[in-house]
Amino acid sequence: MHQDYIKPDNWSIIEEGFDRDSVKSSESLFSLGNGRMGQRANFEESYSGETFQGSYIAGIYYPDKTKVGWWKNGYPEYFAKVLNAPNWIGIDIEINGENLDLNTCVSVDNFRRELNMKEGWYHRSFEAKLQNGTEISVNVCRFLSMELDESGCIHYEITPKNTDAKIVFKPYLDAGVHNEDANWEEKFWEPLGASHSGNEAFVTARTFKTHFTVTTFMHNAILLDGNAQAIDAERSSINNEKIVFGYAVAAAKGQTASIQKIGGYTASLNHTDTVLAAKDVIKSARAKGYETLLEEQAEAWAHIWEMSDITIDGDVKAQQGIRFNIFQLNQTYSGKDSRLNIGPKGFTGEKYGGSTYWDTEAYCIPFYMATKDQHVARNLLTYRYNQLDKAIENAAKLGFTNGAALYPMVTMNGEECHNEWEITFEEIHRNGAIAFAIYNYHRFTGDYSYIPEKGLEVLIGIARFWHQRATFSADKNQYVILGVTGPNEYENNVNNNWYTNYLAKWCIDYASQQIEKVKADFPADFARIMGKTKLDDVEILHWRKVADHMYFPFSEKFGVFLQQDGFLDKELVKVHDLDKSQRPINQKWSWDRILRSPYIKQADVLQGFYFFEDHFSMEQLEKHFDFYEPFTVHESSLSPCVHSIQAAVLGKMDMAYTFYLRTSRLDLDDYNKEVEEGCHITSMAGTWMSIVEGFGGMRVKDDVLHFTPRIPKEWKGYSFKINFRNQILKISVGANETKFSLEGDREVTVVVNGKAVSVEPNSLVTV
Amino acid sequence: MHQDYIKPDNWSIIEEGFDRDSVKSSESLFSLGNGRMGQRANFEESYSGETFQGSYIAGIYYPDKTKVGWWKNGYPEYFAKVLNAPNWIGIDIEINGENLDLNTCVSVDNFRRELNMKEGWYHRSFEAKLQNGTEISVNVCRFLSMELDESGCIHYEITPKNTDAKIVFKPYLDAGVHNEDANWEEKFWEPLGASHSGNEAFVTARTFKTHFTVTTFMHNAILLDGNAQAIDAERSSINNEKIVFGYAVAAAKGQTASIQKIGGYTASLNHTDTVLAAKDVIKSARAKGYETLLEEQAEAWAHIWEMSDITIDGDVKAQQGIRFNIFQLNQTYSGKDSRLNIGPKGFTGEKYGGSTYWDTEAYCIPFYMATKDQHVARNLLTYRYNQLDKAIENAAKLGFTNGAALYPMVTMNGEECHNEWEITFEEIHRNGAIAFAIYNYHRFTGDYSYIPEKGLEVLIGIARFWHQRATFSADKNQYVILGVTGPNEYENNVNNNWYTNYLAKWCIDYASQQIEKVKADFPADFARIMGKTKLDDVEILHWRKVADHMYFPFSEKFGVFLQQDGFLDKELVKVHDLDKSQRPINQKWSWDRILRSPYIKQADVLQGFYFFEDHFSMEQLEKHFDFYEPFTVHESSLSPCVHSIQAAVLGKMDMAYTFYLRTSRLDLDDYNKEVEEGCHITSMAGTWMSIVEGFGGMRVKDDVLHFTPRIPKEWKGYSFKINFRNQILKISVGANETKFSLEGDREVTVVVNGKAVSVEPNSLVTV
Repeated sequence: MHQDYIKPDNWSIIEEGFDRDSVKSSESLFSLGNGRMGQRANFEESYSGETFQGSYIAGIYYPDKTKVGWWKNGYPEYFAKVLNAPNWIGIDIEINGENLDLNTCVSVDNFRRELNMKEGWYHRSFEAKLQNGTEISVNVCRFLSMELDESGCIHYEITPKNTDAKIVFKPYLDAGVHNEDANWEEKFWEPLGASHSGNEAFVTARTFKTHFTVTTFMHNAILLDGNAQAIDAERSSINNEKIVFGYAVAAAKGQTASIQKIGGYTASLNHTDTVLAAKDVIKSARAKGYETLLEEQAEAWAHIWEMSDITIDGDVKAQQGIRFNIFQLNQTYSGKDSRLNIGPKGFTGEKYGGSTYWDTEAYCIPFYMATKDQHVARNLLTYRYNQLDKAIENAAKLGFTNGAALYPMVTMNGEECHNEWEITFEEIHRNGAIAFAIYNYHRFTGDYSYIPEKGLEVLIGIARFWHQRATFSADKNQYVILGVTGPNEYENNVNNNWYTNYLAKWCIDYASQQIEKVKADFPADFARIMGKTKLDDVEILHWRKVADHMYFPFSEKFGVFLQQDGFLDKELVKVHDLDKSQRPINQKWSWDRILRSPYIKQADVLQGFYFFEDHFSMEQLEKHFDFYEPFTVHESSLSPCVHSIQAAVLGKMDMAYTFYLRTSRLDLDDYNKEVEEGCHITSMAGTWMSIVEGFGGMRVKDDVLHFTPRIPKEWKGYSFKINFRNQILKISVGANETKFSLEGDREVTVVVNGKAVSVEPNSLVTV
Repeated sequence: MHQDYIKPDNWSIIEEGFDRDSVKSSESLFSLGNGRMGQRANFEESYSGETFQGSYIAGIYYPDKTKVGWWKNGYPEYFAKVLNAPNWIGIDIEINGENLDLNTCVSVDNFRRELNMKEGWYHRSFEAKLQNGTEISVNVCRFLSMELDESGCIHYEITPKNTDAKIVFKPYLDAGVHNEDANWEEKFWEPLGASHSGNEAFVTARTFKTHFTVTTFMHNAILLDGNAQAIDAERSSINNEKIVFGYAVAAAKGQTASIQKIGGYTASLNHTDTVLAAKDVIKSARAKGYETLLEEQAEAWAHIWEMSDITIDGDVKAQQGIRFNIFQLNQTYSGKDSRLNIGPKGFTGEKYGGSTYWDTEAYCIPFYMATKDQHVARNLLTYRYNQLDKAIENAAKLGFTNGAALYPMVTMNGEECHNEWEITFEEIHRNGAIAFAIYNYHRFTGDYSYIPEKGLEVLIGIARFWHQRATFSADKNQYVILGVTGPNEYENNVNNNWYTNYLAKWCIDYASQQIEKVKADFPADFARIMGKTKLDDVEILHWRKVADHMYFPFSEKFGVFLQQDGFLDKELVKVHDLDKSQRPINQKWSWDRILRSPYIKQADVLQGFYFFEDHFSMEQLEKHFDFYEPFTVHESSLSPCVHSIQAAVLGKMDMAYTFYLRTSRLDLDDYNKEVEEGCHITSMAGTWMSIVEGFGGMRVKDDVLHFTPRIPKEWKGYSFKINFRNQILKISVGANETKFSLEGDREVTVVVNGKAVSVEPNSLVTV
């Protein structure tokens, strides 16, 4: 794939020209989603070239039992797989007897894809010459309705250019799909039956083992030059898992034949009778009609953009990047369904088997907190509260006792569903991020009620875990934490990862403080929680011993905390001095070589400095940034945003801008050469942070919003909005001034560059 | 399973009484093998209880592609699986219309299994009352011919006791078999066809992907009271992968009906037309007949025992243990086929996907070297020489250059076929064991010719690997080896595992010395090898820098080398102080807990002291033994033998005896509660070492055999034989004296307790 194959545009993602080598990457980038389901931008018509087929339904997964390597005690029985769902977008096309396949056409011209982010639709057009000589022009528009979120629509138009043509549209439903990551010929769906009536069809299948039942449905309508045609479908092939209809249309040269296909999924997660539900969805969609649905789609997206848009003036690639990020986040998670969460690849690929990682707490919550109603973030916290029992069970499986909680690394429903020991058992810092999110939520929203109601129990479970997980080293006369994987996953099973140790201590400190506070201010909650958790003062004293005597590896020579014990034994060659041919190292080097190298996949010590910026001086931050940045390869999507924010704080604006582009255009420019596997959804929230917290310098300190606006020299200005405690503050930063305006009813005082500024409702303040 | 369910016996493994809970364990313990194939002791007749079905063919495997977790660059594409081969032992039995199934019989009495190790057959007998009231007595004898090693025989006798009976024998062949470790309903064999003629049948199938073709065959004969019966088979069910014959016999009360089934495998590894080959095997077997085959079996085993038997007087359990070990080793590997090697579970289970581990070099070679002709050990070395190119390729995949060789952790054909990073990429000490085996072979046999002919190239490839694998630590101003897994697999990805560092240095030292020696004494070989490897003096100087400045972690406080960096940060609770309910820890604890514990799966530092005993003083040995032994849980089968030897050396005879029992009866007494998965074959050679090198104190120093005979107080005497440089020395140790006798033609001087003793051919010397 060539760099810059995506055309710069403020509101759209655009590809021009047909390039077989870009098909899989574009399938990722042009993905559609509506929070309930999503799909890669696979062609509707058949394609014999390289493609990665993918449709996904939120909350539906397969538990793979395969055990490669040694089973480890404590593993979950299953490894969750994101499931490729039955295909409803498929429309095979026959033109004058020849099957349309862009891979075998004599020529393909003016191929163009557009993902219109403003209105939420995906368009594809091209001209093709078939082997039988027929020349056609094709326009396809597709969207997944935000409004009727179990359905989507396709409008597929064909115009023969040089001859009359018999065009056969063959829309189909197919549950006989495979996962990319399955074993030879392995299938995950068991067909339960197919039915049809008129222009409608239904295929019902259920997942093996998990028994999620899904009805995939379609309704088709045929038009000629925009006029509805009454054509009976030929059911050319029907079996238990696949239904194909055939609509033959005679289109004279220059006439446009088209099909409007409504399709989607109804799932047993939401309905008892999925076929009946599917019929209802079709009925609702047909009642509105294609044009109305498309208009409503634009309105729904206008509503989203109204609150969450970020504008950037004078830098179209930067503008396109942030909008792509915000668009994908909103395609992935709507906040409507509290059982769902934010999968790292959203609906754009199979990788990352579960839906929920620590990404949610560490990276996503700030975005949803500031661009949605407050309850959305609170729902995300509640998701973990609801899974506390399972986190305690999970910890018990690993030998922890007394209500210690270890949240899963990856989960669909609260159970761990990943089974690599160095991740599952050792990347325990995730527990810290979950505690931090509670702190962060309270800090930002001011809503303390969450803590006595729910959060404190989570904090207690987490503190208990850290207390038990630490080991007293007689040799050091301090507590150590052995055998962990930090945020930098290019180290495994290390001792005394500074970030983990620091977070562990902080979790105990924070939990202890909240216990005191709830005791003082919410005695009824306190009594309930103490009764439930059987916590007493003696236990807290034991916690405190660990927190107060935690070991932190430190290098006197370099004046920095060490990422982990032994870091200085490595050959400390900077990334800059590494041959470019060796990058990305995760595609060039074997794992052992990566592990013994000093290279950092994503911010690790610096992640700690990001969370706890106020615990350290600017000088300390700079020292650590300067020490670790040169070894950081940013091969995790979650890395550049943190470095961008810290570079901005340190006034290294060129670096901050470079990292901003890297985070915001990670997928669009495919920095890590893997976009064909899907987009990096959760890191997109990090992009948002790098503007708001990095350039905008937004912080909340003692219930007051602070800003330290900075602007990259490449930009004329930028703006963003913040929902701060139910009032909407808009911040517009220019080269020389910052403007604040407020949609709300109460005056807000903000601190700008250390100076308090009062912003009145519905007025503009310039600083 | 109860302890002591195996009855003590000098020559047989005996189980008495039918216990459903022991079936899977007994299936392992009573396994048969002949070096070419093997099988678990599954019942011939159908059994609806818990069973683990397994038949295995040497050299035939399946490459599993499943990728669970994150693919790591450098992984092999496949993970080899030991394949459960088509079933030829099956004989369903119908008695008066009822299917014989020990799980559903009204009663099972006098159930007895015997594995006769002296003669190499397996016998099972029982009396059963069926639900239809018929009472029968059954005798089954089975063996895998050592002589015709593609075939085996079963003689299955049934006598109705209380009534006449219509007995239907339904011998079958079935290629529709599954692996225990496969995914849901997954199969590894593709049926190619079935045929039959008269009493013979053939089912041919091939493995998916690897395309090993195997014909499984049978020939059946029916007898009544020992007289052949001419009964036509009813082919009651025949398809592409399964053939079932039916022979109905009317047996009067007290009459014995029986079937003699010849079966086995012919494989494309050895034949182009496997069906034709199968017909030949049946012809050869029938020409000899069952009785002759059984006699030849006893003769073949007599020949093996003649050389390799160890006798122990006064301790039947110890005697049974060592014979079981020697028997299994000879069932697993005959030395006939240089493409084969010694799989850790032999033919007794699926675990350990490949056939060759470092076990061969570290544990097995001494046994085969001393109890077989010298060429057998040389063949085992040559196996690695023949795979040197693949070891170089394997190292190149991991980023090593210039002919550095990394032998695979697990292999079927020279390619790595395991894919757990902490093992595959990090358990690199295996390379050292391969070099050590060359040294050991020369030390024992005096055959230096192997080194200029083949071994030196291997040593150069290995030295190059260690040179590149070490990292210069500016912090320590020494070379370190980062990110390894030592022999103690209860530590992963540690820095400076002392054993690995020590072995790395030794490999470079030894390779350098051999280069000098070959240069001086074998100039033609030297020139050839230098030309091929492009090695020069400058490169050797670089190697030497690493060897001469290697870092070895050492504790001043304890006066011992540390197993790895950071070992003293652990909570050093001794195994003795660990609650018994927590053992074995690999079944009770999660992996992270094991990793951060001080517990040692198998000798690690002490393995180094075993290999290089002469590098250290007795005082150093004792200090390290006393430090590490208390933390060693011996949950690897390869551990107790080393501790037994060292305890003997240190005069801790009670401990040595305890460890001896543990290694020799590991499976018989199921110390690690896992024998149902199969037996631990390679460690059985360690048992042999613990007698010969431990109690016998055998060492070879400067071409002379040394002995320091010791005897556990539980024993009256023991004896073993050694093939030392093509002369057979027999050593009989009593409480007060040791006797030596020699089958050979040259006088041998041995050093006994430091004193030289001359042993003349065919005379007895008592010391």
